[in-house]
Amino acid sequence: MIEQKFLTLSAKTKGFHLITSEVLKGLSLPKTGILQVFIKHTSAGLAINENADPTVRADLDKSFDVLAPENQKFYQHTVEGPDDMPAHVKSILTGSTVSIPITDGKLNLGTWQGIYLCEFRAAATPRSLVVTIFS
Amino acid sequence: MIEQKFLTLSAKTKGFHLITSEVLKGLSLPKTGILQVFIKHTSAGLAINENADPTVRADLDKSFDVLAPENQKFYQHTVEGPDDMPAHVKSILTGSTVSIPITDGKLNLGTWQGIYLCEFRAAATPRSLVVTIFS
Amino acid sequence: MIEQKFLTLSAKTKGFHLITSEVLKGLSLPKTGILQVFIKHTSAGLAINENADPTVRADLDKSFDVLAPENQKFYQHTVEGPDDMPAHVKSILTGSTVSIPITDGKLNLGTWQGIYLCEFRAAATPRSLVVTIFS
Repeated sequence: MIEQKFLTLSAKTKGFHLITSEVLKGLSLPKTGILQVFIKHTSAGLAINENADPTVRADLDKSFDVLAPENQKFYQHTVEGPDDMPAHVKSILTGSTVSIPITDGKLNLGTWQGIYLCEFRAAATPRSLVVTIFS
Repeated sequence: MIEQKFLTLSAKTKGFHLITSEVLKGLSLPKTGILQVFIKHTSAGLAINENADPTVRADLDKSFDVLAPENQKFYQHTVEGPDDMPAHVKSILTGSTVSIPITDGKLNLGTWQGIYLCEFRAAATPRSLVVTIFS
Repeated sequence: MIEQKFLTLSAKTKGFHLITSEVLKGLSLPKTGILQVFIKHTSAGLAINENADPTVRADLDKSFDVLAPENQKFYQHTVEGPDDMPAHVKSILTGSTVSIPITDGKLNLGTWQGIYLCEFRAAATPRSLVVTIFS
């Protein structure tokens, strides 16, 4: 059995945002399976990490700015603004997909895990996701 | 339903290469499902990113060279050349798998998304992929 | 067909550890499918890389220490120790999941590929995994 849901998240500020409840909204999960979330963009990503202390998410945003800095001298792709090429690098570092086991009708996440939308652009736009459930 | 296809890509230069059409060649996709691509190597990776402007791919190559530089003083694994250990690091950063939803018989990629082979070795070799389709 | 197995790995030292045989232990794989491994933690990760020379794993550990250093001045999330926030960053860089094709009843890994537990905390704790097999 495969089921798909299409989801557009409202524009968010640059940074790491918890979206677990938005992803699950309206879904009835099977007893056993996998939930996959895919983001249809190249300057944002998805990840799984800490769902509690918001300072983790703030530190992640700054850490990714260090990993993929703006204004590298070698950048050729600069027409879409200084945050665009770093956003492409960060998007590859986080990945475009998260895939989570479903056990006993629930996401089998660890106590501290949540799903993140990783928004890497300064000028926010809505983001389209595809949720696919296998059972 | 599960279907697999085995694919060997010809040797490519170091860098990020669009392979979407090579992956899809000869496949008839189901109406709804997931297509997974797996690379059977530890010094190359797979990713999803910009399918248009080639300068994005050039900037990604240079950005990954900064993330995982050659000749780090602490490297012990140097017998296979200066680009080998960085290639292992980069391969973990990109990942060995991409997984894309199939909707209405087509890959449900965003407008600007394509599948990349990320070749991290200077001396190119052919690369083996496994494509698995669930429906 | 979906099958799940729950696995707790004993506490390991900080670093990259081969766990392929622990993951496969007691499993009978289908002829064709996918094996997915998910880690239920936010300060450790999973990856696929070199299964032979242990110096690769030592160099990976040091490379990730450079990618996500301790004691960045901007870190706000410091209450759980200097290695905690770097562990969150590294966990996103490696990812929480690996997904490997099954062909002819075996994991279709390349000759040099193995599954890694990436332990990013200095004070080791046991780690919970969920293994899901689709066929």
